[in-house]
Amino acid sequence: MAATIVEKIFSKKCGREIRAGEVVMAPLDGAMIHDITGPLAIQKFYEMGGKKVFDPKRVIMLFDHQIPADSIEAANNHVYMRKFAFEQDIHNYDINEGVCHQVTIEKGRAAPGEIVVGADSHTCMYGAAGAFATGIGSTDMGFALKFGALYFKVPETIRAEVSGKFPRRVGAKDLILAIAHDIGADGATYKAIEFTGKTVRKLDMAGRMTLCNMAIEMGGKAGIVAPDKVTWEYMKGRRKMKPFELDSDPDATFAEKRSYDVSDLEPQVAVPHNVDTGVPVSKVAGTHVHQVFIGSCTNGRFEDLKEAAEVLGKKKFSPKIRTIIIPASRDEYLKTLKAGLIEKFVKAGALVEAPCCGPCMGGAFGLIAPGEVSLSTSNRNFKGRQGSTDGKVYLCSPATAAASAITGEITDPREV
Amino acid sequence: MAATIVEKIFSKKCGREIRAGEVVMAPLDGAMIHDITGPLAIQKFYEMGGKKVFDPKRVIMLFDHQIPADSIEAANNHVYMRKFAFEQDIHNYDINEGVCHQVTIEKGRAAPGEIVVGADSHTCMYGAAGAFATGIGSTDMGFALKFGALYFKVPETIRAEVSGKFPRRVGAKDLILAIAHDIGADGATYKAIEFTGKTVRKLDMAGRMTLCNMAIEMGGKAGIVAPDKVTWEYMKGRRKMKPFELDSDPDATFAEKRSYDVSDLEPQVAVPHNVDTGVPVSKVAGTHVHQVFIGSCTNGRFEDLKEAAEVLGKKKFSPKIRTIIIPASRDEYLKTLKAGLIEKFVKAGALVEAPCCGPCMGGAFGLIAPGEVSLSTSNRNFKGRQGSTDGKVYLCSPATAAASAITGEITDPREV
Repeated sequence: MAATIVEKIFSKKCGREIRAGEVVMAPLDGAMIHDITGPLAIQKFYEMGGKKVFDPKRVIMLFDHQIPADSIEAANNHVYMRKFAFEQDIHNYDINEGVCHQVTIEKGRAAPGEIVVGADSHTCMYGAAGAFATGIGSTDMGFALKFGALYFKVPETIRAEVSGKFPRRVGAKDLILAIAHDIGADGATYKAIEFTGKTVRKLDMAGRMTLCNMAIEMGGKAGIVAPDKVTWEYMKGRRKMKPFELDSDPDATFAEKRSYDVSDLEPQVAVPHNVDTGVPVSKVAGTHVHQVFIGSCTNGRFEDLKEAAEVLGKKKFSPKIRTIIIPASRDEYLKTLKAGLIEKFVKAGALVEAPCCGPCMGGAFGLIAPGEVSLSTSNRNFKGRQGSTDGKVYLCSPATAAASAITGEITDPREV
Repeated sequence: MAATIVEKIFSKKCGREIRAGEVVMAPLDGAMIHDITGPLAIQKFYEMGGKKVFDPKRVIMLFDHQIPADSIEAANNHVYMRKFAFEQDIHNYDINEGVCHQVTIEKGRAAPGEIVVGADSHTCMYGAAGAFATGIGSTDMGFALKFGALYFKVPETIRAEVSGKFPRRVGAKDLILAIAHDIGADGATYKAIEFTGKTVRKLDMAGRMTLCNMAIEMGGKAGIVAPDKVTWEYMKGRRKMKPFELDSDPDATFAEKRSYDVSDLEPQVAVPHNVDTGVPVSKVAGTHVHQVFIGSCTNGRFEDLKEAAEVLGKKKFSPKIRTIIIPASRDEYLKTLKAGLIEKFVKAGALVEAPCCGPCMGGAFGLIAPGEVSLSTSNRNFKGRQGSTDGKVYLCSPATAAASAITGEITDPREV
């Protein structure tokens, strides 16, 4: 019987044929908590009578939002979580490894066919590794930590088929901003978005992560890319698994099918204060910016930073603005460093910080003042997201961010 | 007539023979403001009827304590200062260059024979460049910005003569902690401390900066090292100046003379909660630490980080603690990067952040929780300085910090 990838994953995990719309209690392959949502999840775990987590090896813990601790409260949260990790025998990546979603995938803690939950909206990124992954609240996480299982209404799937070759300086981030604009902020509510087609097949893991990361910005329960050679190649050395087939049947039932051709896609910019407001960069070119941020789970990988470095060339970042660059993980940082790009960025005037969420959610640092404009490669531009509610956040690709950091205003990366 | 260096500097600047104890209005060669003290100083400048600063080229402005902005209030302060810099035609180093004191010296904004004030306690560091430099409050800075001059009671001088060869893994920080212990937290109140002797002559600029930086920790108005070959070599390319003689006359009147022999000096650790509590590391070895910070204006130079790297060797930092390393400036960062040390530190498990004050004053990040212990190469260990008032801060050299970061407890760097 024909099925979507998501239906196949749930069927396999639950041991019977399951279709979208069913409510099931599914076993979990992983549960991720970080420094913001972790403490409450642990508290809920105890309130539910939790004594030992379902499987210490399947719990992923790290600190990325407020590191190194930016307040005594944050420091206390860290202490609380470290104690939990020690008592429960959970490996804690602590403040060292980087942004939760990047680290989870890099460490092979989410793999094809698995069901993984995380106490963070952008957990849907693990769909790039062929997992069904979704963000949950801290109460649900308390339950997940105790029982290693969770209720799900198995979601329907929107199939997004992408064709065409990306023009120069246009990539996955431009595509997902265009898709978000097309589908709308609530157009995929509680649905999985499956990214497929020749263009997706040709995308590297970095690009696939960017796509899946932003499924939630359309209300998506999950984003997913069927595992293929690229996926299995990436999994090597991260997980001992034999490659297997996992893809939606052509005659599976989809909520809808949409197709996109990137051949003529322009660099996209999402304007304040919503993510589904993507416009071609030409529409907002010339907008003065005060801060440019290149990083986050959405666009903080080596491939992203390499693209930014290529746009930068031998130029300098404008001394009139702040350019903040943060690799998404220690691995990505080291790759970037070894390629000589950190030196290049710092010489060009950027601040390169240790791997963390950075200005993305306006928590620890990189906040903007009233009246200021941030241009960011991250995933959300809600009012006040990066500081003052009287500031503005625009979202774009690493290429557009780099081009704009050179000029100090929103700039088409094909024109620098 | 015999005079101290400080008396000679004031005599030259004021155009008449001046001796310690006199109150003079002296012209200023430089005035430094940063993101914490700057806004109030600017406000005072305007309250005093200030319209244009005395000389835009002599005002040094940069942001180092809360960068990138860690709150909307900080972001607003930055905006306020940028506006002032723009209107007054002051070159603003902004968030890019590093810690104020390091940058001021690096950029040649403090030079032999000059009088420089800064709205920060550790301004006394510029004495390493042969300048009379002292920290002042924001009201005084408002006056200084307007008039380019300030009242001083010319301080008496304590002459600290240092002899002997530093044992392996013992250096300037150990010496200054030993001197602070000897002189006491208020033993040099309103006096200049002149560091001299063969050992000081052999010290590089990095070491001299460490010494002068901490003069204030004994109540000193200034720290100073007579300019010599090392100083003039350092000034090359930073300032166009012809070398000249500037040293205390042997028969000048000193408040007191003290002598130190470093031949048998052990690595020193200042225990909570004061700076003048230095003890040999053996007395506190084994004390468990939660966080190690290598950086700050006191010890964030390439030479410091190189020393830390040498102690590290092929070992790893303990995964049970946080090791935070922050070069003091962009120049020091790039030197460290090019020498391969940033890669080495990150691979060993440290977080390397962009140049800034970091955890030193517990403002932006790196705060400790109640019950936690920080071991820090910075200059102050007052109660609550790095976060919770129920935490503890120990001060030490980069070598001792690195050794302790490997083991997770205070460790003699000669024993790793």
